[in-house]
Amino acid sequence: MIIFVLNCGSSSIKYQIIDMPGGQVRIQGGVTRIGYDDAKFTFKADSETKKTLPVANHEQGIDLILKTIEAQKGQTGIGLSDIDAAGHRVVHGGSEMSDSRIITEEIVAYIESICHMAPLHNPNHLKGIRAVQKLLPDLPQVAAFDNGYHTSIPAHVYTYALNYDIAQKLGIRKYGFHGIAFRNMIEAAEKLLGESLGDKKIVNMMLGSGTTANATLNGKSFEVSTGFTPQEGLIQSTRAGDMDTTSVLYMMNQLGIGTAEADEILNKQSGWSGLSGIGVDMYDIKQAAKAGDQRAQLTIDAVAHRFRKYIGAYAAAMGGIDVLIFAGGVGENDSDMREKVCESLGFLGVALDADANHNGTGERVISTGRVQVLVVNASEEKMIAEDTYALLK
Amino acid sequence: MIIFVLNCGSSSIKYQIIDMPGGQVRIQGGVTRIGYDDAKFTFKADSETKKTLPVANHEQGIDLILKTIEAQKGQTGIGLSDIDAAGHRVVHGGSEMSDSRIITEEIVAYIESICHMAPLHNPNHLKGIRAVQKLLPDLPQVAAFDNGYHTSIPAHVYTYALNYDIAQKLGIRKYGFHGIAFRNMIEAAEKLLGESLGDKKIVNMMLGSGTTANATLNGKSFEVSTGFTPQEGLIQSTRAGDMDTTSVLYMMNQLGIGTAEADEILNKQSGWSGLSGIGVDMYDIKQAAKAGDQRAQLTIDAVAHRFRKYIGAYAAAMGGIDVLIFAGGVGENDSDMREKVCESLGFLGVALDADANHNGTGERVISTGRVQVLVVNASEEKMIAEDTYALLK
Repeated sequence: MIIFVLNCGSSSIKYQIIDMPGGQVRIQGGVTRIGYDDAKFTFKADSETKKTLPVANHEQGIDLILKTIEAQKGQTGIGLSDIDAAGHRVVHGGSEMSDSRIITEEIVAYIESICHMAPLHNPNHLKGIRAVQKLLPDLPQVAAFDNGYHTSIPAHVYTYALNYDIAQKLGIRKYGFHGIAFRNMIEAAEKLLGESLGDKKIVNMMLGSGTTANATLNGKSFEVSTGFTPQEGLIQSTRAGDMDTTSVLYMMNQLGIGTAEADEILNKQSGWSGLSGIGVDMYDIKQAAKAGDQRAQLTIDAVAHRFRKYIGAYAAAMGGIDVLIFAGGVGENDSDMREKVCESLGFLGVALDADANHNGTGERVISTGRVQVLVVNASEEKMIAEDTYALLK
Repeated sequence: MIIFVLNCGSSSIKYQIIDMPGGQVRIQGGVTRIGYDDAKFTFKADSETKKTLPVANHEQGIDLILKTIEAQKGQTGIGLSDIDAAGHRVVHGGSEMSDSRIITEEIVAYIESICHMAPLHNPNHLKGIRAVQKLLPDLPQVAAFDNGYHTSIPAHVYTYALNYDIAQKLGIRKYGFHGIAFRNMIEAAEKLLGESLGDKKIVNMMLGSGTTANATLNGKSFEVSTGFTPQEGLIQSTRAGDMDTTSVLYMMNQLGIGTAEADEILNKQSGWSGLSGIGVDMYDIKQAAKAGDQRAQLTIDAVAHRFRKYIGAYAAAMGGIDVLIFAGGVGENDSDMREKVCESLGFLGVALDADANHNGTGERVISTGRVQVLVVNASEEKMIAEDTYALLK
């Protein structure tokens, strides 16, 4: 089964063509700067094509992807008629969508109904779904919800201590994100260890430009650091994460700004980028710190401290920790950060294998202690393809 | 040395007359509803006096206290001429006031200069200081700063990942509160254990109507749950504590409210009171839960979960935990809550002595495991008297 996996953002589309059940990525690419005259299109199979051209909207972007697939059929062996299904990443599934679903008008209406909770994401996913419906009317489509994995979190964990009536009326609670990635991380870890982790206490650290920590207990999500929005929790590339909520009100008063500007500061101008002043790439921040930049060093120390706190907090919440899994750009590639995070966790039974941590490559075990510490590659696209295959095979 | 200890709030004054160096509380009481015609005044030595009368302002309140002290001299043996010094609790000492200070015009000016960071507290403390200056012009006064203990917290711990320039400009960082109580908790713990805890990893849980968790490492504050304001961190009696910052912006947009109303909701209408709908007394919430009230049970579970997470987070931040100290109304009196919080912490070496926990009284050790778990009585007033004595003896 050939599956067209899409992740539609506000001005971008990421896509992969995945061959299931094997999971081979046959084609991948993206469109960025949608809405501009200089949108960037990439298409990569055996070789890579890059183009700069005007792309007005998501439908044009998807049309461009589909036409290129058809045009390259001779090279790739995959044409439009070979595509069996589409799978979409949908950030917010509210409190109801625990599993991936075949997209019907009812599901579309539900996603639409919670757009106010994910205004930067859900409307764009719907644009992608509608565009595929229009361009390939008979293609079955599946929606995989990024918070679906977290619907197992118990009420006393997802409930904020906000005034109850207001919280109920507005649906303000912890939802949590990166759930598709966490499912894939655990799947990868089970494959790597050759055993089921269904009875283990797992802490998942998805440390990419968006970062989320997760506690998985008895095979189910039990806690998660991202909250009502992806803002809460760890320090992220441009998101501040945890802060005194009333310090935000103070900031608004002092700067004379409204909620939109405060949101922009917290989500786009903060995090390790806003703290270091260097940028979103942790590698650059590390280089600057090595060269003596004190703000860069402060940033790395603050990021690591927050990571550690979440690992300890989740261990305490679960009554211990058996497995610690790192993934994401920083989690997978930054062995210095992993070492720094783990250096104070010996009392939990965490002991890194320095050689495996720094010099190993690929998915691997990097620990020698009681707690198994793993590095895995989290592929949301692969997980969406698996869900789509499972629902439609 | 007879010390007049004051804690001046917006509409209240709490006071004690403490005999140092022994630390005996000779007189104590308070004035509430300052500014109203039915203010309540209490004065307690061997017997207790209660009065309802108009008290227009802090100066009138302090005058009432002083006149009553003088009038009761025959009974208590302490008149105005016996008072050697006054000690004030001052919530916010900014980033500079690490220790208690003898009050000079310079210190008054400094406290005044940071009133914008603690608008509900510092202006009232100043009213109290000015009133004592006026009524007892020659009395030396000392200010004890509630965040002073936390000035030892390293930058990577107190720094939020907020845009650096904004954070610097506005002084937005973690300050932490309940520092006077934490110092007294550690002092009480050392007395109880008969040993110095200067080389121990300590987690302090100050669980009163305002609640703060603290990590003390090598005799110094290393982490604290309250932040720029007392809002951040644990669930408190009326404060929400940790929440997704951008969920607050969402709430403001949806309800069409400004920062003042949002602040009121987060600080006064949330916490275990706002979540349970029952009130600020945890005992009432427990009774309701026992009677089957699901929101009450949810509240207790949520409060305990958050307490646990902070203990685990601070253990991870320090590289372990040796001593866990409970104090405050809930920390000291609610053995069920202590049991609930500790039940998942066995992996850290926490094991409660059920009998000592539930049936013991007073300051005591309640653990049998490697981690020493203590219940102590935290007296901010006693600590302020000690500081005042140390500076003026």
